[in-house]
Amino acid sequence: MYKVLITTVPFAEVIEVPRQILSQHAEVDFLVNPLNKKLTESELIGLVEDVDIIIAGTEPITKKVINAAKKLKFISRVGIGLDSVDLTACKEKNIIVSYTPDAPAKAVGELTICLMLSLLRNVHVSNSQLHMGSWYRFFGARLEDSTIGIIGTGRIGKRVLSHLRGFSPAKILVNNLENNLNELPNDLNIEFTSKDKIYSESDIISLHLPLTSSTRNLITEIELSSMKKNCSIINTSRGGIINEEDLFYAVKNKLIAGAAIDTFVDEPYNGELKELDNVLLTAHMGSMSVDCRSRMEIEATEEALRFINGDSLQGIVPNEEYILQSKFN
Amino acid sequence: MYKVLITTVPFAEVIEVPRQILSQHAEVDFLVNPLNKKLTESELIGLVEDVDIIIAGTEPITKKVINAAKKLKFISRVGIGLDSVDLTACKEKNIIVSYTPDAPAKAVGELTICLMLSLLRNVHVSNSQLHMGSWYRFFGARLEDSTIGIIGTGRIGKRVLSHLRGFSPAKILVNNLENNLNELPNDLNIEFTSKDKIYSESDIISLHLPLTSSTRNLITEIELSSMKKNCSIINTSRGGIINEEDLFYAVKNKLIAGAAIDTFVDEPYNGELKELDNVLLTAHMGSMSVDCRSRMEIEATEEALRFINGDSLQGIVPNEEYILQSKFN
Repeated sequence: MYKVLITTVPFAEVIEVPRQILSQHAEVDFLVNPLNKKLTESELIGLVEDVDIIIAGTEPITKKVINAAKKLKFISRVGIGLDSVDLTACKEKNIIVSYTPDAPAKAVGELTICLMLSLLRNVHVSNSQLHMGSWYRFFGARLEDSTIGIIGTGRIGKRVLSHLRGFSPAKILVNNLENNLNELPNDLNIEFTSKDKIYSESDIISLHLPLTSSTRNLITEIELSSMKKNCSIINTSRGGIINEEDLFYAVKNKLIAGAAIDTFVDEPYNGELKELDNVLLTAHMGSMSVDCRSRMEIEATEEALRFINGDSLQGIVPNEEYILQSKFN
Repeated sequence: MYKVLITTVPFAEVIEVPRQILSQHAEVDFLVNPLNKKLTESELIGLVEDVDIIIAGTEPITKKVINAAKKLKFISRVGIGLDSVDLTACKEKNIIVSYTPDAPAKAVGELTICLMLSLLRNVHVSNSQLHMGSWYRFFGARLEDSTIGIIGTGRIGKRVLSHLRGFSPAKILVNNLENNLNELPNDLNIEFTSKDKIYSESDIISLHLPLTSSTRNLITEIELSSMKKNCSIINTSRGGIINEEDLFYAVKNKLIAGAAIDTFVDEPYNGELKELDNVLLTAHMGSMSVDCRSRMEIEATEEALRFINGDSLQGIVPNEEYILQSKFN
């Protein structure tokens, strides 16, 4: 019998399939996150002792958690980021880690365009005002006239660029760990350049990066101060890439025009950014389209069953992710 | 000396050019809307008595207003809709009417995509909740998987379709007074069909129509009841095309999922839709990008000066607009 702990939230909320395929397997005994929220390290420690497999969200699977999970053999991450999993500790204990890196990209891409347009046109601010009985016709800008900075042109950054083809932005400045300009749409006016140039010249900046020690606090007061006053910044990647205190300071003091933040250092988020009307806040919903979320949950669950059945794994985390994490952490 | 009344709000707020070109003309004596809000019929009557030219917004230039404006010779509409101007009454009094029909389209098109994506992903609802300290990860849908209904494929509907090319929606159902499918992007899966089919099959419906007596109350409880429960509807055209009371009823009672409304029967809007979190409200901001709004104001002001100088007019309202209005009103 394999004990499977599902920590990710939500799980099988809209489609029942992941729960069904676990129920139907004779050798599986599973428990879905009983707290129905993102677990803390200590809550995880309390749950993992006799668990063989974790189907994991973004909760912290730290060295302490791994040491407490004496029987843990396999982690199946629902999603793309691996910042929450101590890969080195997993390797030491021969715990295999799989993930679903392709599934979330489409949903994050579409959300990002929504956030860009909302920031450019003050849609979220006008909505709040009208719901409180106040009417003001905000001026805005258009994507077609804007310089857009994209930091990170992997799976998700590429999707964002593909959507931007329908808007013909004046200029797109991109930066990535490796220059992959040849993989990006050639009918857009794209320039591969430095992050500093992106900070100082963009009207809107969107981050599509993993969280590593080199991207943690990538955007602090220094970078925010170098941006144009009309610039807005979007983070649908991971909390912590933008320093939240510095962002609060920068928006409050009008160093930049606004921000859209979907991911936070502590989730559920309940911090001071909520005091600022021109910070658009969403509840880590980047991947939360029914199709993408379902695909993520099904893929991660099927991968767990492949592990149990001894079938070859399809989403095993490649070595470069281990190198990336050990290099920068 | 020509007395010019500028009724549109805002005017020359971001760029000074329209005000400057009026100031520099020796024969112009101008007054900008002293109430700084959309004028009512009676407020207009109080201001127009000795006015030669109106540079107009969407305030009601009715027969009564025209009768009160004894010296009125020319109306230059800042924008596209002519529902606010009694064209027949103008014709009877030999008052010439010009407009700027192309200028707003780009700004309305981009806003519409923002509203579609926000409705599909509950961005506006999540934003309100997080600002009040509550966290819930909403499921949503993606444009790529959606059936999108576009009613009205004129200047603005075409812009919306052009942006949708970056998202490859599963299916687009369109309806227009005349079938102009041959003018629409041929790399999208577009079907020209009846409004009834659009109502019953779309996941999201966007209206891009003029307000005439045939489009007033086009969408009532009957049409809303025929829509899918997950459907959302967008109106960036003119207030009154969707019956506001029926929309309130339909959203409150979950006949449809939500709505995004930018234009209202009475503006500034302060009605009951503000009680519904899943109705995204904006303050008639469709055309309010700096570039489009500036272009509209400059074009309308330059047209007024052409009239004064006896130069040939460039934005004169074509005869079909008079026919459309008299036919349906």
